Amino acid sequence: MDTRFSSALHMLILISEAETPMTSEQIAGSVGTNATYIRKIAGSLKKAGIIESRQGVRGFTLLIPSERLTLLSIYRAVNGSSCVSLFDLHQNPNDRCIVGKHIKPVLQKEFSSLESVVSQALNGRTLKNIIDMMRNEIDAQGTNMTSGEQK
Amino acid sequence: MDTRFSSALHMLILISEAETPMTSEQIAGSVGTNATYIRKIAGSLKKAGIIESRQGVRGFTLLIPSERLTLLSIYRAVNGSSCVSLFDLHQNPNDRCIVGKHIKPVLQKEFSSLESVVSQALNGRTLKNIIDMMRNEIDAQGTNMTSGEQK
Repeated sequence: MDTRFSSALHMLILISEAETPMTSEQIAGSVGTNATYIRKIAGSLKKAGIIESRQGVRGFTLLIPSERLTLLSIYRAVNGSSCVSLFDLHQNPNDRCIVGKHIKPVLQKEFSSLESVVSQALNGRTLKNIIDMMRNEIDAQGTNMTSGEQK
Repeated sequence: MDTRFSSALHMLILISEAETPMTSEQIAGSVGTNATYIRKIAGSLKKAGIIESRQGVRGFTLLIPSERLTLLSIYRAVNGSSCVSLFDLHQNPNDRCIVGKHIKPVLQKEFSSLESVVSQALNGRTLKNIIDMMRNEIDAQGTNMTSGEQK
């Protein structure tokens, strides 16, 4: 199970909404994983220019406003790929069969087309959308997002 | 790598287009895998009412015309699920953090919405579409799909 995307979204909500910058250890505590895994994801997000950590300052800062940070750019950053890849292709079709010979380019084209539908959907959603969904979820229960305290 | 969907599409093109019914062994030879794996996929496709094998007759028959057989029904059959699942959710967010407490329902909703975009795209495509793409691919090279012979 690959939960890098889901963990990155959790992490970015924390970085965006926390009143004081959160460290890898604090983020790991909320995501329910270890700090090494969080630092690995942070490395990918830094490389993509999404977050930064300044020398001498603990914790991470968001470099792109949440309303302009698309889910596609987050997905691409943590998967280290410019494409969304959802469907795997079998690797050894038999070239001596006419179907086996032509299946790869045909399915590659079909899968790319399906994957571009997801890319477009991810590109139309932002971190802000997710944060707003979370606010709505929390509002019903009367707690405050940044402090976690009861209102 | 999960290539059940891609292998099932290859297999169904063969079943649909072959002049005489093909056995698991023959299909495995074209897909580039073993007959046990093909029989496993065949089992899922039979269970979903997509193909059948008649007692005393070798090979498989398509039960749904290729122009009505959607990629969604094939995907569902081989993945044994009524939902398209593309994104995994991290399993242990910390309930004592307000974000950790609410992340699961929020991401479940978001991922379901993204997955329904793919379901719709898969539902809008049929085995016939894939076969037509393959015919176009083959036409350029002057070979015949069912026999594999040069025209």
